[in-house]
Amino acid sequence: MTLTSPELSELVARDAARHRVLTGDRPTGPLHLGHYFGTLQNRVRLQRAGVEVFVIIPDYQVLTDRDVAERLEEHVLGLVADYLAVGIDPATATVFTHSAVPALNQLFLPFLSLVSVPELSRNPTVKDEIRHSRQDAVSGLMFTYPVHQAADILFCKADLVPVGRDQVPHLEVTRTVARRFNERYGEVFPVPECLLSDAPLLLGTDGQKMSKSRGNAIALSASADDIARLVKRAKTDADRHIAYAPETRPEVSNLVLLAALAQGRTPQEVAAEIGDRGAAELKRVVTESVDAFLRPIRERRAEFAADPGQLRAVLAAGNARANEIADATLAEVRTAMAMSY
Amino acid sequence: MTLTSPELSELVARDAARHRVLTGDRPTGPLHLGHYFGTLQNRVRLQRAGVEVFVIIPDYQVLTDRDVAERLEEHVLGLVADYLAVGIDPATATVFTHSAVPALNQLFLPFLSLVSVPELSRNPTVKDEIRHSRQDAVSGLMFTYPVHQAADILFCKADLVPVGRDQVPHLEVTRTVARRFNERYGEVFPVPECLLSDAPLLLGTDGQKMSKSRGNAIALSASADDIARLVKRAKTDADRHIAYAPETRPEVSNLVLLAALAQGRTPQEVAAEIGDRGAAELKRVVTESVDAFLRPIRERRAEFAADPGQLRAVLAAGNARANEIADATLAEVRTAMAMSY
Repeated sequence: MTLTSPELSELVARDAARHRVLTGDRPTGPLHLGHYFGTLQNRVRLQRAGVEVFVIIPDYQVLTDRDVAERLEEHVLGLVADYLAVGIDPATATVFTHSAVPALNQLFLPFLSLVSVPELSRNPTVKDEIRHSRQDAVSGLMFTYPVHQAADILFCKADLVPVGRDQVPHLEVTRTVARRFNERYGEVFPVPECLLSDAPLLLGTDGQKMSKSRGNAIALSASADDIARLVKRAKTDADRHIAYAPETRPEVSNLVLLAALAQGRTPQEVAAEIGDRGAAELKRVVTESVDAFLRPIRERRAEFAADPGQLRAVLAAGNARANEIADATLAEVRTAMAMSY
Repeated sequence: MTLTSPELSELVARDAARHRVLTGDRPTGPLHLGHYFGTLQNRVRLQRAGVEVFVIIPDYQVLTDRDVAERLEEHVLGLVADYLAVGIDPATATVFTHSAVPALNQLFLPFLSLVSVPELSRNPTVKDEIRHSRQDAVSGLMFTYPVHQAADILFCKADLVPVGRDQVPHLEVTRTVARRFNERYGEVFPVPECLLSDAPLLLGTDGQKMSKSRGNAIALSASADDIARLVKRAKTDADRHIAYAPETRPEVSNLVLLAALAQGRTPQEVAAEIGDRGAAELKRVVTESVDAFLRPIRERRAEFAADPGQLRAVLAAGNARANEIADATLAEVRTAMAMSY
């Protein structure tokens, strides 16, 4: 079963405090608007609704598709600044790196015993990531990381995991691990549900998937100039009439969607307002509304980024809390497996 | 490079205190005479020579070839009693279970990133163990456990690892992991050497590999009756002249070897003494000398086993020391990988 936002609202309205969400981002670069509208916004909503939110920075996972993780500290602290800037509240949310939580990582071992090599080989997302890897041969870490992800999720007994469609097979591994563990050793883990976002997919300024490495992403920290430059380079088409038609005019529609998301309106409203004034006007509207939208986030982010001591303190507190929870879960797992001597 | 006992003696004589040995046994049952003459005796020698000895009880490893680890606590405490009975001294040696050392288990993650799936698939010992596994499909834990073994060995920077010939490919994985880690992140780990035992191979009382599950093993805790019963059932041959000729008369020669090891003499001496008095006399000699040899070990073992509180205390102290060392190594690894935020 997967839940989409309306179902989620219902579920949360019933009993928010009973739920725990696990979500996070690999520390490979700054977060951008695709992340914001795809997931960050929802995390903040869930947090405000009273759901307990765990935000994991899976730093070992960077090594699944490259030999060495570059500028890790910068990226990790950058993510913490991004989270604080968009409204993740460290007073209720737990922001942590999994490398700082040994008991979480230990859960990987019993979990690996619950999954077979043929099952690992069949995972479609791993197959796809292997195709796009920067490494010659698949590493043991890449091959097994859906199982490590089960440890990332289950250590805090998260029952809701926001995912993109491409991540659904990964969460299926976590669900399998939880079910098999419970069957074999007694009930310890919830079997978590996917939270599928119903946000329309925001593409990059070139009409491709938004990604820092493609140079088509508007970072949360983008300056007015950065935004102007990226939007100026965006593809449009020759039709002066602006409309929202993602199937037939993907590039123009993506710019309309971007302005609409930034303004908190529907793409249809934004398109109607521009009407026949063409791509130049569309780009002006996008640039202005994205800049207006990002200004307060950018300013808060700059303040946080100027105080790395505070970022480290937020992370240290999150790591301490994650360790406390992981230690308790590992103790339960040891008891269930009769490994307390 | 591998070292055999004479080379080892030299090496140890030069500078024992500089070396650390990692060795251990899966908690699947009581240790027997095959273990004693194959490895336990050497551990005690190394310890007495001033080498620091780490004795790991790899409890997660039980799950590599079966779904559930049965009677784990009994087997773990039984191993501790066996170790103490043969002379492992908890004042200088560290006896621990790897499930009690989260930082050790965390090293598994960076190590997995250093080894490829094709390399894991090629490991001949894993292939062989997979053939003898009690499970239908190879688990992720079985497939990756040579890499976890690297964590078992390297967390304490052991530089010497006593192994049987079948374990040499496993240690090669550890050596590869250590070398690659050092190349990629800077010198942190020693590249450990194999210590190959030069003890002649002691078979079970049926002439097959000595193994608890085959019912052909004389446990360290065996009573005089157990020994008599096992030796009585042993295979011999029709030739009344007793000789040590492992190639042509393997069963008789194995009994001769057993008596010789128990008496601390050569098999040739033992065989000559029995001469033409046949298999019955051989069995009488074996039974008596094994019983005489095991009596003090059995008595010490019974004392230790009668005091599980003491066994637990030895294990707790070993686990505490292993955690201290693992935490320090993990901190070094974090610094080397630029993962200290």
